[in-house]
Amino acid sequence: MSISHRPGHAFRIRHLALEVQDLERSVAFYQSVFGMRVLRRRENPIRNDIAAYVGYGEEVEHVSLELYQFRHAAPPVHENRGTHFAIAVDGIEHVFCRAVEAGAVARTQPQNNRPNSVNKFAFILDPDGHEIELTENSHGGQS
Amino acid sequence: MSISHRPGHAFRIRHLALEVQDLERSVAFYQSVFGMRVLRRRENPIRNDIAAYVGYGEEVEHVSLELYQFRHAAPPVHENRGTHFAIAVDGIEHVFCRAVEAGAVARTQPQNNRPNSVNKFAFILDPDGHEIELTENSHGGQS
Repeated sequence: MSISHRPGHAFRIRHLALEVQDLERSVAFYQSVFGMRVLRRRENPIRNDIAAYVGYGEEVEHVSLELYQFRHAAPPVHENRGTHFAIAVDGIEHVFCRAVEAGAVARTQPQNNRPNSVNKFAFILDPDGHEIELTENSHGGQS
Repeated sequence: MSISHRPGHAFRIRHLALEVQDLERSVAFYQSVFGMRVLRRRENPIRNDIAAYVGYGEEVEHVSLELYQFRHAAPPVHENRGTHFAIAVDGIEHVFCRAVEAGAVARTQPQNNRPNSVNKFAFILDPDGHEIELTENSHGGQS
């Protein structure tokens, strides 16, 4: 059995793809609110879409967001229940306000995870309605 | 301005959350097909859900999947257009077959990205209908 058949050997969560209606609006949003960098751009004539990969660190090592826009956009899909992604932040109230100023919808105000927790969360919708959880933890990765 | 207000300083894409109908079925799927480990489990009485975080490497450094199941499940949502996530794999045909054997729906068979590309992709739906792109690249992170 070749090395490529051992589960877990070379697997990596590579990107999360989000369809957007206005690529430059979305790139500006993730840059200005979340400090992401544009890692690369691509154009795909077969799919008839354009995309920008944004994130932190090198794409070959770190997960990124693929923001993609069809040339002939389908109607926006606001019904996306059951999927969201989380960004760990410092200063959750500040980031939350910046996001809303930048066009996000406030879904859940920053608050403690549980009554006895020092960690906080909030929910926003990005300019296309994609749900983002903001998390701020006082000690490490637990919530 | 405190350190916590500098965009990009402490940001990290932390997890992608997927609602599932049967947590143990989903844990088994991501373990057996994609070699993910269970990083932790949690129960949230306020949300009335249970969850397992699965992925590769430590959760404080690497993005993970949060698989969560409500105790009183809502009807499944199969309309989730516009969002998917990608897993880089070795041996895409083999992984694709394993996934289908494990209950995934074959959406797009493994094929070259473009006529002149040596890289490949495929699409499957996980047991809850969440869309997963499989990618196999011959040289690094480009597609």
